[in-house]
Amino acid sequence: MPGELMAAEIAEQPGVLARLLDLGAAPAADARAAIVRAAPRFVVLAARGTSDHAALYAKYLTEVHLQLPAGLASPSAFTVYGARPDMRDVLFLAVSQSGGSPDLVQSTEVARACGALTIAVTNNPGSSLAAAAAHHVPVHAGPERAVAATKTYTAELLALYLLLVGEDASALPDAAAGTLAHADAAHRAASRFALVDRLVTTARGYSYPTAREGALKLMETSYLAAQAFSGADLLHGPLAMLGPDVPVIAVTTPGRGSAALAPVLERLAAADVDVLRVGPPDGLPVESAGVPEPLAPILEILPLQQLAWRLAIDRGGDPDRPRGLSKVTETW
Amino acid sequence: MPGELMAAEIAEQPGVLARLLDLGAAPAADARAAIVRAAPRFVVLAARGTSDHAALYAKYLTEVHLQLPAGLASPSAFTVYGARPDMRDVLFLAVSQSGGSPDLVQSTEVARACGALTIAVTNNPGSSLAAAAAHHVPVHAGPERAVAATKTYTAELLALYLLLVGEDASALPDAAAGTLAHADAAHRAASRFALVDRLVTTARGYSYPTAREGALKLMETSYLAAQAFSGADLLHGPLAMLGPDVPVIAVTTPGRGSAALAPVLERLAAADVDVLRVGPPDGLPVESAGVPEPLAPILEILPLQQLAWRLAIDRGGDPDRPRGLSKVTETW
Repeated sequence: MPGELMAAEIAEQPGVLARLLDLGAAPAADARAAIVRAAPRFVVLAARGTSDHAALYAKYLTEVHLQLPAGLASPSAFTVYGARPDMRDVLFLAVSQSGGSPDLVQSTEVARACGALTIAVTNNPGSSLAAAAAHHVPVHAGPERAVAATKTYTAELLALYLLLVGEDASALPDAAAGTLAHADAAHRAASRFALVDRLVTTARGYSYPTAREGALKLMETSYLAAQAFSGADLLHGPLAMLGPDVPVIAVTTPGRGSAALAPVLERLAAADVDVLRVGPPDGLPVESAGVPEPLAPILEILPLQQLAWRLAIDRGGDPDRPRGLSKVTETW
Repeated sequence: MPGELMAAEIAEQPGVLARLLDLGAAPAADARAAIVRAAPRFVVLAARGTSDHAALYAKYLTEVHLQLPAGLASPSAFTVYGARPDMRDVLFLAVSQSGGSPDLVQSTEVARACGALTIAVTNNPGSSLAAAAAHHVPVHAGPERAVAATKTYTAELLALYLLLVGEDASALPDAAAGTLAHADAAHRAASRFALVDRLVTTARGYSYPTAREGALKLMETSYLAAQAFSGADLLHGPLAMLGPDVPVIAVTTPGRGSAALAPVLERLAAADVDVLRVGPPDGLPVESAGVPEPLAPILEILPLQQLAWRLAIDRGGDPDRPRGLSKVTETW
């Protein structure tokens, strides 16, 4: 059946999160202790594709929770231009499902040789990336067979939370199951986009990685030109391309990010842009009651995965077989 | 006449660059001396919209030339979540045409209070941002009246080069004039995209900011869904949405970035994707002979500005009056 792999892995997520809470807390705590010992003053994150959105999530955790400046690495600075920066007092954190991207492996080796504390978060303890880093935090998502990553994304987010924050996240599996139970709402929403070719996603703060990852899922599975903008950037230029045929998906699970997005949504409403919310009021339901804002991204991506899956099916595609893509992408 | 402001400001660029070389070298050298004295170990860059692409350019200069780890700030970490990270030994570099975005001003104030060396690069010495930073580097572009930024973008790039590298750039004004003289090629290329609704831009390394800024120009002026991907990220997911109706613009001015892009272009050719190059062979001409790779971004954006302008006119629009946009964008 078209999309059966992706559907199965979407459904698997509450169990994956529960397993990670069980098995992943100890290795995450060990790596966190190494961070405390090293007392880094700056955090550099490296990733590609879906994992880049997990890295962006980790950037907010770093800046807001650890109170450290952070940046996403440009691997090409290392791999193409041969940069060998002074990386003492730096935590270099690489995130990858497969642990197999050669440029991430090489960037991690360079960062380690340049003095950084290196930690890899992957779904494959036997990977080159896990071996290249001083510490490895496994995400325990099990084999991912669908081309469009779902369970490894939410597992990466939780592993990063366990690594960087380490506070209680035990409400997540039930909240994820509760959120997934609203699949009908996501599937109904897909009909709104049946004839749409372009779409914009937006959010602020912790939810911004959700906007980015949601856009990538729609691109991968339905070939939509889905573009993500932080609410602030949306008002600088991209607003011009919105119109009656370019709807917006806005992530508005309660929190400070959502509050900061409110004036942007007012501008969109004034311009008669069609907006689908993820979260209240009247949006795709996210069962985030009792879940702190920094954990909400693990829930709010779920209806967008369901939406992307349904839309691909409705449009006659197969979300398990996107054209032109293979599972491990080699970049250099 | 539609687009006359944008056309005039595109044409003004060789003169703007010459003036900046003349007037801007001294303040840039003063600020560079402050960087040398402070000996920062990390660089955090902050910007929005077009200036965000200038900040991305500065990130490559920082990583490759200064050999320091660097990251783009998430202003919302400061302004929405109230983060107050330890920023001693950090250079905080804010880039803004107007110097008026409240969130950049506030982020700069916070970074300064948290111990960072703060430098603002703006087109307005009287702006709040110039006042908030310890040092100000003016870009001397003169008033920018078109909504789509052109001359302030290339002036920001050159100001950042003078600030962070400070080597000879005297070949630029003539090279810019020579590149702009090929306007016919860019205008002819616009006809290829007359019926196109979606488009992808790609590049690697120093040219990646050009891909990002070129996509923004096409979005702002022609409402195209133009998406930029680094060549490496393009193979992770977005490749699925390319097809006969989604052409690619690839920036291939000679250098290491272009060499690293070659395997990506082979993949695109194998998939029969329609690719327009900026740079050799057979692409829109860029007169970059004798100009080092880190300065090429100041030239290679020029044909993309001309292309965006022409395309907007051809499609019956007015690039000076994009719908929904105003010149100073307030974000908070």
